[in-house]
Amino acid sequence: MKASRFFIGTLKEAPADAEIVSHKLMMRAGMIRRVAGGIYDYMPIGLRSVRKVEAIVREEMNRAGALELLMPAVQPAELWQESGRWEQYGPELLRFKDRHERDFVMGPTHEEVVTDIARREIKSYRQLPVNFYQIQTKFRDEIRPRFGVMRGREFIMKDAYSFDKDRDGLAESYRKMYEAYVRIFTRIGLEFRAVAADNGSIGGSGSHEFHVIADTGEDDIAYCPSSDFAANVEAADALPLIAQRAAPTEELKKTPTPGAAKCEAVAQLLNIPLEKTIKSIILATDNEGAEPTIWLLMLRGDHSLNDIKTGKLPGLAGYRFATEAEIIEWFGTPPGYLGPIGTKKPVRVIADRTVANMSDFVVGTNEVDYHTTGVNWGRDLPEPEVADVRNVVAGDPSPDGKGTLEICRGIEVGHVFQLGTKYSDSMGATFLDENGKPAPMQMGCYGIGVTRVLGAAIEQNFDDKGIIWPEAIAPFEVVICPMGYDRSDAVREQADKLYATLQQAGIDVILDDRGERPGVMFADWELIGVPHRIVIGDRGLKEGKLEYQSRRDTEATLLPVDEAADVVMAKVRAALGK
Amino acid sequence: MKASRFFIGTLKEAPADAEIVSHKLMMRAGMIRRVAGGIYDYMPIGLRSVRKVEAIVREEMNRAGALELLMPAVQPAELWQESGRWEQYGPELLRFKDRHERDFVMGPTHEEVVTDIARREIKSYRQLPVNFYQIQTKFRDEIRPRFGVMRGREFIMKDAYSFDKDRDGLAESYRKMYEAYVRIFTRIGLEFRAVAADNGSIGGSGSHEFHVIADTGEDDIAYCPSSDFAANVEAADALPLIAQRAAPTEELKKTPTPGAAKCEAVAQLLNIPLEKTIKSIILATDNEGAEPTIWLLMLRGDHSLNDIKTGKLPGLAGYRFATEAEIIEWFGTPPGYLGPIGTKKPVRVIADRTVANMSDFVVGTNEVDYHTTGVNWGRDLPEPEVADVRNVVAGDPSPDGKGTLEICRGIEVGHVFQLGTKYSDSMGATFLDENGKPAPMQMGCYGIGVTRVLGAAIEQNFDDKGIIWPEAIAPFEVVICPMGYDRSDAVREQADKLYATLQQAGIDVILDDRGERPGVMFADWELIGVPHRIVIGDRGLKEGKLEYQSRRDTEATLLPVDEAADVVMAKVRAALGK
Repeated sequence: MKASRFFIGTLKEAPADAEIVSHKLMMRAGMIRRVAGGIYDYMPIGLRSVRKVEAIVREEMNRAGALELLMPAVQPAELWQESGRWEQYGPELLRFKDRHERDFVMGPTHEEVVTDIARREIKSYRQLPVNFYQIQTKFRDEIRPRFGVMRGREFIMKDAYSFDKDRDGLAESYRKMYEAYVRIFTRIGLEFRAVAADNGSIGGSGSHEFHVIADTGEDDIAYCPSSDFAANVEAADALPLIAQRAAPTEELKKTPTPGAAKCEAVAQLLNIPLEKTIKSIILATDNEGAEPTIWLLMLRGDHSLNDIKTGKLPGLAGYRFATEAEIIEWFGTPPGYLGPIGTKKPVRVIADRTVANMSDFVVGTNEVDYHTTGVNWGRDLPEPEVADVRNVVAGDPSPDGKGTLEICRGIEVGHVFQLGTKYSDSMGATFLDENGKPAPMQMGCYGIGVTRVLGAAIEQNFDDKGIIWPEAIAPFEVVICPMGYDRSDAVREQADKLYATLQQAGIDVILDDRGERPGVMFADWELIGVPHRIVIGDRGLKEGKLEYQSRRDTEATLLPVDEAADVVMAKVRAALGK
Repeated sequence: MKASRFFIGTLKEAPADAEIVSHKLMMRAGMIRRVAGGIYDYMPIGLRSVRKVEAIVREEMNRAGALELLMPAVQPAELWQESGRWEQYGPELLRFKDRHERDFVMGPTHEEVVTDIARREIKSYRQLPVNFYQIQTKFRDEIRPRFGVMRGREFIMKDAYSFDKDRDGLAESYRKMYEAYVRIFTRIGLEFRAVAADNGSIGGSGSHEFHVIADTGEDDIAYCPSSDFAANVEAADALPLIAQRAAPTEELKKTPTPGAAKCEAVAQLLNIPLEKTIKSIILATDNEGAEPTIWLLMLRGDHSLNDIKTGKLPGLAGYRFATEAEIIEWFGTPPGYLGPIGTKKPVRVIADRTVANMSDFVVGTNEVDYHTTGVNWGRDLPEPEVADVRNVVAGDPSPDGKGTLEICRGIEVGHVFQLGTKYSDSMGATFLDENGKPAPMQMGCYGIGVTRVLGAAIEQNFDDKGIIWPEAIAPFEVVICPMGYDRSDAVREQADKLYATLQQAGIDVILDDRGERPGVMFADWELIGVPHRIVIGDRGLKEGKLEYQSRRDTEATLLPVDEAADVVMAKVRAALGK
């Protein structure tokens, strides 16, 4: 491509509504343009990267045996009513009526449509397994679209849906997709982790999220550097940090802690480690026609409550925090100095796994300005119910026993999910098994946010000059910047020759023949993030040299003119793993 | 591809709502499945053909210098309000509100969005010309979607929009697109014609429709077999069929023609050619606060009125047919025996070009049951206003003077259109010209109905067994049908070998390893329309032969096993023009 025949629209400043770096840089590089909130044009230079992501996704999906089809964006409400999601889905589901006043939705996802296909087309176990996928524009009416393509309303997704005759088949289909995703993100050239996710509210069980690692990520991920364990912080098992409880060494003692309502203040005041203190978190669950059950969850002072784990404990589904009135009624004191000993009314005590193995610890006394030190299980209070109710922290043992956890931030770009029979049951997608009996199909669903990948790639790869694209999804792999293309025959000839050579070798190269000043050229291509740059000028040519610079290099390297093409080709191919 | 890993869903019967052959065959071949009225799934085998059309379109658009981008499906109402189409567009424009009660449309076309891009991005004549295109899902809320993908609601379109600094530039951009379209439909392998279209109501001037020729087409096309002239019948110039008016030879004579109100009856009664008779068509145009103007249009008895041409004549915009009361008032007689001579009140007479050169012709006498024969211009009535007001018919001279016209039917699959400044003016898309003055951009728009091409291709290419795909857009180019793949080692080995050879040569081949009976296999692939079939069986192999049959052949040909791959490759490549 010659730049004079292309469309380049870089901006000096990002618009005010661009909050994060990928949004700013995609706007400034002219990759996207805003049409409405969360709705963008993909300009030619942006679409090139979109198409490269799509091509890699398509190749790997095909390699994994999935079959591409295309379902409609506009879907009839009846299907969503059958699955129950017409009611369950919030206002993110864009609903509208056609000219005949029939209800439709603009599809945010396609479980209903694909299940409708399966139940009509698949009659026999002999037709299974099958995995249908599409790469398609979706719409999700976000209440506050932001972050550019990271949380837009209209976006491109690859969604796949597998159908199997049994759970073993589903596990195998799931494994193939998991492996395809690993190949996809590896080929794209991103640092990523497959994260065991909490299943959330989608239903079914067994899922992994694929996260691109970036400091600006929305999700906290716990991972083990010495194994492939990775999980959302909310989902990662928090093991006890004390293997065995030590025998008591201190006496129980009521200690004045004036003004120290928080564990940190108590530890400072008493000059003890924070790890000796316990925070008491008071929850409530309501009982029909009776007073609520009040729960006291005991966590180590430096730990935090994990509400997902907590909500899954027996009796705690739908819990809420206790009100101040309830706390005064049950504990005889307002919040701040609460503890498990000497409550006014009985409470259910649950100790976090670590707390359960502590000894000589400190709790609130249920009296303002006082704590109790030297508390020990069994001696001072009964053995507790024990559960994992906290978030893991860096330094925790990895649940797989292979090291200690680190925490990083990630951006979710893919999700593989074992749906089981959720949709098959609600929509009646059955097949005849080997015995001629109808059975529900086992479904999996597998998504990749194609346009989101671009944003995530930038969040992981940028500097103060602009984007630094991985070769595989760069709009161009190489840019040739001739100094004086219009003035110097030597420069023009050399630039054209190199351009032709690289193009014939299948390198995705752009020749900047716009006639811009070098400063403008360099700034544009650094902003756009083309990974390899060649500068050709009269001065260098006199010595038979040109300048090569990778987007990550701080300085240019002089290369003999005759070797330049080979050097650059080798670099591009190495980066693409060819 | 091996059929056992693919998804084939042929049907014995088409659903009852499938009226036309392409709809029936696409359903029966399992290419599409209905989701709602005019909304379809493209199943894997159907999507393969869609993608092949897209790829050809994309290659030729790129070759023509157009730049691919992607605009959103969901568009804010504000843009449509600016262009005026928010009011002008009928209920085909799907309008809806988002969760914040803001108005949006689901784009049926993208003039507004692309003009918004142009006015923001293009500042200077130096950035022109530019041509942006996209291949994208569109929605048009047809009141009665029918004919499968031919008139669906959700469909895939390639739409392109050119921007130029002046009319000459637009003409050049238009020419490039016209030529690209010729290449596209030629490569797809369809018989088509580029038809000069009436501009209809879209605005602007200068357009061609690309029609696939098929007996089932919706449009009548006049074309010249000995040149490339082609136009919609409504738009084609009707030349005078008589080069020069002959001198009168007959006397004017009032002749009884009892009961013969129609030209055909008059000709029969008087035993004269229909070409000697004139039909008088009475039109009216209303005048504010005055009586209407009454027009008498004279056409030869065998010709028909062209209402588009008529409506464009000076004074005739918005014409209507005269009422019976008006006819009685102006002509003194009810309809049936009307003519230009001796009207009660003055009428405006317009003679069709052919009529203007006639002599000794027959007209009504304005008296029931009488005609006047031997009528001649100048002698019996004043020289008329002359205009082209009739539809062309087969046998008419071609307007380009290169032969005579034929009439055929066509299916519109593409449209190139010079918009001029319609949108640039209403939406303020200006640039600074060479003199630093703002000027409106000259726009063209260029559409191809990607999914419609499939339907049109089938309407042109089918038989009673099913579809006959042109190679370039067939879901597969070659099918290998082994007889007893599971039973015979020799058959399986030969089939696998041939499959591997063809695949390595880049042939899009499917091996039917499903283990179906030969009758089922053959019926499926004939229905699906794969253009080349190879049958491998033990009997043939014993003699070193296999069977080849093109989808258009009535019988199979025996080929030596060793030559089969080369023969088939040569046939496919020849068909693809490689």
